[in-house]
Amino acid sequence: MRNLKLEIEYDGTDYCGWQTQRKTQNAKGKTNSIQEIIEKALQKILQEKIRLIASGRTDAGVHAQAQIANFKTSSNITSKKLQKALNALLREDITISRIEEKNLDFHSRFAAKSKIYRYTILNRAYPSALLRNTIYFYPYPLNIKLMRKEAKVLLGRHNFSSFQASDKIERPAIRTIKSINITKDKQRIYIDIEADGFLYNMVRNIVGTLLEIGRGRLPGAGLGKILSARDRRLAGPTAPARGLSLIKVKYK
Amino acid sequence: MRNLKLEIEYDGTDYCGWQTQRKTQNAKGKTNSIQEIIEKALQKILQEKIRLIASGRTDAGVHAQAQIANFKTSSNITSKKLQKALNALLREDITISRIEEKNLDFHSRFAAKSKIYRYTILNRAYPSALLRNTIYFYPYPLNIKLMRKEAKVLLGRHNFSSFQASDKIERPAIRTIKSINITKDKQRIYIDIEADGFLYNMVRNIVGTLLEIGRGRLPGAGLGKILSARDRRLAGPTAPARGLSLIKVKYK
Repeated sequence: MRNLKLEIEYDGTDYCGWQTQRKTQNAKGKTNSIQEIIEKALQKILQEKIRLIASGRTDAGVHAQAQIANFKTSSNITSKKLQKALNALLREDITISRIEEKNLDFHSRFAAKSKIYRYTILNRAYPSALLRNTIYFYPYPLNIKLMRKEAKVLLGRHNFSSFQASDKIERPAIRTIKSINITKDKQRIYIDIEADGFLYNMVRNIVGTLLEIGRGRLPGAGLGKILSARDRRLAGPTAPARGLSLIKVKYK
Repeated sequence: MRNLKLEIEYDGTDYCGWQTQRKTQNAKGKTNSIQEIIEKALQKILQEKIRLIASGRTDAGVHAQAQIANFKTSSNITSKKLQKALNALLREDITISRIEEKNLDFHSRFAAKSKIYRYTILNRAYPSALLRNTIYFYPYPLNIKLMRKEAKVLLGRHNFSSFQASDKIERPAIRTIKSINITKDKQRIYIDIEADGFLYNMVRNIVGTLLEIGRGRLPGAGLGKILSARDRRLAGPTAPARGLSLIKVKYK
């Protein structure tokens, strides 16, 4: 038996997310999951039942520059051959960027120490045709300094109930945010968040709240109050999935 | 009467090109032209017949970061209002990035001094899901130095018949290439070509030939021989449309 680790890049636009969920559709009504598509391709190539274990789910419409998943196989195909075969078989919106042989006890989810998500905002008066699927067009002026200052209260170990999707409650809602970096490159703003784990919609709810703050719309409350209230209704709206990408999974 | 100049960004993937051509389809069988879509949107907003004049055609599947087009109107709508209305009405793969009022005699095509096209290549062993529509995945090792050296013979005023689409002959085939720059940024290679005008498929045929040279496949001939032969059969294959984008139109 071998344990193979995949690094996967995908454009989530046409998918219901990483994992197959009953009744989950993306904004376009698509129900295909990325996991399912890759499992099918692996099965076709390897001629055996394959079960992929990912570092975690990504929601409908969310992208990945480097999702990690592993699976066990009795095949002795080389990693290079398997990668070529997979990329030839898969649709162009899913790419296998690396395959590595791991110890049998490597587990993509349990061994993950932290994940980094990047949210990308296009902050100017008009949208971008070429970037439309991977960037959130936000035309209102933003006070980045204030956003950076407020974001600091989220650092560390907290109960993030206020930023959890209200229809998908997880208990406990305790997570540790290791870093939040807000950077600006011309008209693009990147919000990078590293944490040991994320609740449903957590990044998108934090980003939606930070955008409201940057726009001057949550002047009284402040992020600290929202966080400690543990009440989703106090936070800002959920930022759209298209701006979000899983960019790195860190392992011990 | 007013003369308005538009700067337009578009993802050409789903279009048959800038201009409506009888029987022209793109690779997906689409026959919509970008010109037609924008004219319809303008007509809906301005309630008058509109005829757009562009700096030039772009072929099926080719993109633009900054195509230029102008049109005449009797409307007195402000440029800002018109831009907002257009971007709200147009599909997300076409964006109006600027509207400017010009003298009545400004003509997007006749006044253009030169145009710059960029061809983008992803040069690594595996493709990219997120960049798939705007980059040409080319897995073979390339000798960039040789490509740069060979490209120099194209500079200046020449008959470019060897790089003209064989089914769309234009006479005369004389054009002036002002610059060709080949740059590398990690795994991406950019080929930027500035000329006073381009023949059908000229950039893509030049790129296809340069890639063959970079790969060591046209060792004997050399670009100078191909150019002077004025014979399309000697040049390399036409590089795919997806890697090509019109990035700038220069005016006097």
